[in-house]
Amino acid sequence: MTKAVDLGGHSADLGPGRNAGFGEAVATRLAELAAISDEPGRLTRLYLSPAHWRAAELVMGWMREAGMTTRIDAIGNVVGRYRARDSGPLTLMLGSHIDTVRNAGRFDGPLGVVTAIEVVKAAFHAGKRFPFAIEVIAFGDEEGVRFASTLGGARSLAGTFDNRALDEIGEDGLSRRQALKAFGCDPSRLSEEALAPERSLGYVEVHIEQGPVLEQEGLPVGIVTAIDGVTRAAVAVDGVAGHAGTVPMPMRKDALAAAAEMLVAVEECARTRTNLVATVGKLEVPGSAANTIPGQVRFTLDIRSPSDDERIEAVRAIREIIATIAQRRGVTERMVIGHEVGAAQCDQKLSDQMAAAVAACGVAQRRLPSGAGHDAMAFDKIIPFTMLFVRCRGGVSHNPDEYASPSDIDVAARVLATFLDRIGSG
Amino acid sequence: MTKAVDLGGHSADLGPGRNAGFGEAVATRLAELAAISDEPGRLTRLYLSPAHWRAAELVMGWMREAGMTTRIDAIGNVVGRYRARDSGPLTLMLGSHIDTVRNAGRFDGPLGVVTAIEVVKAAFHAGKRFPFAIEVIAFGDEEGVRFASTLGGARSLAGTFDNRALDEIGEDGLSRRQALKAFGCDPSRLSEEALAPERSLGYVEVHIEQGPVLEQEGLPVGIVTAIDGVTRAAVAVDGVAGHAGTVPMPMRKDALAAAAEMLVAVEECARTRTNLVATVGKLEVPGSAANTIPGQVRFTLDIRSPSDDERIEAVRAIREIIATIAQRRGVTERMVIGHEVGAAQCDQKLSDQMAAAVAACGVAQRRLPSGAGHDAMAFDKIIPFTMLFVRCRGGVSHNPDEYASPSDIDVAARVLATFLDRIGSG
Repeated sequence: MTKAVDLGGHSADLGPGRNAGFGEAVATRLAELAAISDEPGRLTRLYLSPAHWRAAELVMGWMREAGMTTRIDAIGNVVGRYRARDSGPLTLMLGSHIDTVRNAGRFDGPLGVVTAIEVVKAAFHAGKRFPFAIEVIAFGDEEGVRFASTLGGARSLAGTFDNRALDEIGEDGLSRRQALKAFGCDPSRLSEEALAPERSLGYVEVHIEQGPVLEQEGLPVGIVTAIDGVTRAAVAVDGVAGHAGTVPMPMRKDALAAAAEMLVAVEECARTRTNLVATVGKLEVPGSAANTIPGQVRFTLDIRSPSDDERIEAVRAIREIIATIAQRRGVTERMVIGHEVGAAQCDQKLSDQMAAAVAACGVAQRRLPSGAGHDAMAFDKIIPFTMLFVRCRGGVSHNPDEYASPSDIDVAARVLATFLDRIGSG
Repeated sequence: MTKAVDLGGHSADLGPGRNAGFGEAVATRLAELAAISDEPGRLTRLYLSPAHWRAAELVMGWMREAGMTTRIDAIGNVVGRYRARDSGPLTLMLGSHIDTVRNAGRFDGPLGVVTAIEVVKAAFHAGKRFPFAIEVIAFGDEEGVRFASTLGGARSLAGTFDNRALDEIGEDGLSRRQALKAFGCDPSRLSEEALAPERSLGYVEVHIEQGPVLEQEGLPVGIVTAIDGVTRAAVAVDGVAGHAGTVPMPMRKDALAAAAEMLVAVEECARTRTNLVATVGKLEVPGSAANTIPGQVRFTLDIRSPSDDERIEAVRAIREIIATIAQRRGVTERMVIGHEVGAAQCDQKLSDQMAAAVAACGVAQRRLPSGAGHDAMAFDKIIPFTMLFVRCRGGVSHNPDEYASPSDIDVAARVLATFLDRIGSG
């Protein structure tokens, strides 16, 4: 293997502090990817869309430049394989997703894909092989915008894809099965994509934090401890509508006043627990008018924690306080759990190795849970996984203003390269 | 004057407890009026509409049967005049309105008009005259549905009608001036309609309570103390939107959690004051999603009291607590007063005479403020006025389920008849 002439600004030395070019190179490629959209004027790249196809082709080109063989698998994931030294049997997966929400930012997903490719490319240009193969995966279907279920790409690899999801119909009237075929995929071969856990070293994902913690603490990167479990619920409060002028306060059964007291209690419940967040994101007052006492209110609950026990205890406490408030006020309430997913714990050993790589790059080790879901979740209890978060400005994500700086991306890339070197030699 | 042969079930004796026929007679006529609507299948009778015209004609027929001369005045009010004994120069006005909200009940407004007509009719059939003329007014434009301003009918009589309201445009594109002309009215003669306060004994209105107090206390009627003053305001709360999973509780600036705390405080403010109600009728979370921390909330405030001082103090307290909560949470708030009307006090002497009539009919005297607005408000500080409330089922109004029982209506009619006898002889 001859060393490529153009190193694209990267030195072959992947040690800490000396490869500022990673950040700019990744940022440039993220801008190229961001130009590929299904909608003019904003970034929207839905799973299996024409823009997804063009993005997949661009990514495969970069993978090949980085010394990888490429293919698109049966569920539409882009897979680039960088073979192991001495044809070793083990594989480490790196990656993230290249589908986006509507009117997205350019970092959520593509950052992890492009950073992995750049790190592999630097190794390739340096003539370096690892004692394991590396597969860089650009997942599709992480955002769950096009079809009802989500994480199809990662679940297919994890061997947990539910074939009933092939019949889900998107807004355009096409089923997932039809969309896969139009993309050139063969859904009948889906079962063949499941990885062999005994030959997997695990999965490592670089991703923007999508929250404000690293920014607040002045840190470029953080090591993820777990992906939060989540309980989603809908709460209906029914009181008695009335004229805002004619019903004395003690005779009211105001559904909105009751809901307000419930919201304050939900917030208090989360504030008094260290390891949990609870959010009422939507609240509606059907048929409301300024001069009418609200008769009904509907609101959502979203409760997340890296600890399933703590989440389940909090949901129970919230259910109890909502019932108590309703009873005291003479209104009725109904709380229906709509969606419940357990926390996915990052692998202790991989996370410790990532933390060591962070330290080796001269950065303080900060561990934090992920409140957002990621492809990595799909590998819970299948193969070990860990994640590296990158500081994002203002914690803003799912928004064109989403931003991670080239220098922070550079730190992440160097940490990933260091991590690969260390597990390769460990 | 010969006594009519058919008394329609009423005896000429208007004393308490012996004229149960008033209730049924009024209920029958309310049903006739309720059949006159601008919309098939439900009661909607907007000011100056074809249904308003047909209702006015029906009401004028009833007035003439009751011995009154009739006319439609320049603003579209139906005026029936029952001349005084010995051509006395003073006039007492009775009445209410015959326009309705959309999808209305049949009692709100028409009850006061029909009850007054029935009581006058009984006097007429008994050959009775009073030492003052009685004018029964069926106002238009009380509900304020068709044009932006309201109480045009009563304000015209009060001499406070603002001629700029003639240029208001309704949903159908017609101005109030055009609609008046189409109704056969001459808006150029509006100023001639203003009553002469020195020749007026005042205005008396029977109306359903539109609230639950009389029902709660098991009383058929109540004497109104004042029509509440009202402050309407809009409150905007702006925080910072964020991902429901990724922002720790202490770092949130959740606009909805802040608004919830404000709502609890507003309710508490009203609950701890005896003479006041405060309502948040509308609350909206623009651009909300179940997994997003709300960045902005908009809500309305409606604060009412028979005491202007207490209302103004409460608005000040609410403004302060909203600002305090916003500041503590690091969100911004803006509270804008949109509408403010002072309380209209019922005349002490007329109200005492009404209370005496209630007692004479064997009913407990209950005085209560009106949280809803009424035509009577327009006479505030112009001529004395009072109101008699009739129990309504469940406090429900502005709704097809609106209901007052014939027996309660009967009590109200007998109280009104007794009241007329007493002030006529007082």
